[in-house]
Amino acid sequence: MSRGLKLYYDFMSQPSRALYIFLSINKVPFERCPVALSKLEHKTPDYKKKVNRYGKVPCIVQQEFRLAESVAIFRYLCREHRVSPFWYPEDTVRQARIDEYLSWQHLNIRADVSLYFFHVWLNPLLGKEVDADKTDRLLQRLEKGLNYFERALLRNGNQPFLTGDSISIADLSAACEIEQAKIAGYDPCSGRPHLNAWLNAVRDFTNPYYDEAHKYVYRLTPKHISTPAVLDED
Amino acid sequence: MSRGLKLYYDFMSQPSRALYIFLSINKVPFERCPVALSKLEHKTPDYKKKVNRYGKVPCIVQQEFRLAESVAIFRYLCREHRVSPFWYPEDTVRQARIDEYLSWQHLNIRADVSLYFFHVWLNPLLGKEVDADKTDRLLQRLEKGLNYFERALLRNGNQPFLTGDSISIADLSAACEIEQAKIAGYDPCSGRPHLNAWLNAVRDFTNPYYDEAHKYVYRLTPKHISTPAVLDED
Repeated sequence: MSRGLKLYYDFMSQPSRALYIFLSINKVPFERCPVALSKLEHKTPDYKKKVNRYGKVPCIVQQEFRLAESVAIFRYLCREHRVSPFWYPEDTVRQARIDEYLSWQHLNIRADVSLYFFHVWLNPLLGKEVDADKTDRLLQRLEKGLNYFERALLRNGNQPFLTGDSISIADLSAACEIEQAKIAGYDPCSGRPHLNAWLNAVRDFTNPYYDEAHKYVYRLTPKHISTPAVLDED
Repeated sequence: MSRGLKLYYDFMSQPSRALYIFLSINKVPFERCPVALSKLEHKTPDYKKKVNRYGKVPCIVQQEFRLAESVAIFRYLCREHRVSPFWYPEDTVRQARIDEYLSWQHLNIRADVSLYFFHVWLNPLLGKEVDADKTDRLLQRLEKGLNYFERALLRNGNQPFLTGDSISIADLSAACEIEQAKIAGYDPCSGRPHLNAWLNAVRDFTNPYYDEAHKYVYRLTPKHISTPAVLDED
């Protein structure tokens, strides 16, 4: 079923990176279809008509079938392609735990990171004012979310991955979300040793694709936050 | 697997209603465990420890297994119980379409309705100021979301349900979300004939449980919006 699978993505989009890494490491053949969010290519009538009616990335297209929303795409790919079973196990309890995280994250980790990133990093680029009080509120929210992630979800290091002993699509989604904070000058790993160890474990497991998908994140991250060197200079 | 299944819910919570209706109409035996959000029963240390670490409703508990997030609970129930297959079909494309809606709705229909409801209806009860400009912005957002629902998701009446010709968990989730706007004095059906027809279809299909779960919504809705009569006066 992988014939003609196209991924529309931008490496500045967290779920785009997660799907790109997932397809690559599972050796699912796909056509790379980059979409430049900075040029608003995702908002053109043609894109909305032919690719994603919601006007967002990521999206997959396979012949007449078009699917948006990374969580839905992950599940579809796990059903339709030969991917390693640990990504989304058959076991009903593990599957429920992964579904629980992927549902919870929308209004939590994803929102915590995205709201901070948009306000602190994107707004100045768009000529919009950065309100100091709002920055403080969003920073508090971000820190609360990441502290919860460290303490409750990673159980202070007593659980190597989000839903047990092996990596899953929940970890890959979460890692790509959390990396985004670095661009806005916030180091999610500072003071959070278990989050740091977990993020390194996700990266190690999925490299070289993880670093490939994060090359712009690494380049845009301010120097006071440590990131891997980016070797290719495309 | 239904032995000892408990549902923790409050009828003021949209996804609680959706799960209550779903379990009832599918004749899955479950123990009713009401949680009074108005008394902050979901925020007690005991509730967080024994039921839902996220401190929210709905949640299911079955012996040692506890699961939060209605989207994850729906999928778990569809795997583990004899529910009619149209709720979450085996067909991979239908399943993908349902997953796509249930992922998309978090930051769209669910957020559109909830933000308006919290600001306009809940804030005054909590003694908080209702900012007129913010009300306008949230109203515009709500109307934009519902117009999109009418036009694109229901295809202006050319599709009876969200993902095709038969009802699914996507419809039930969406209907329970959209009903919430009525409490805040906003009629989602006014000027939207296809949304109105669809909402009636979801209600007809799932009654008497739909009306049972919505009895507080109907009672709290201002009189200028038409709602079914509530017969039981518990």
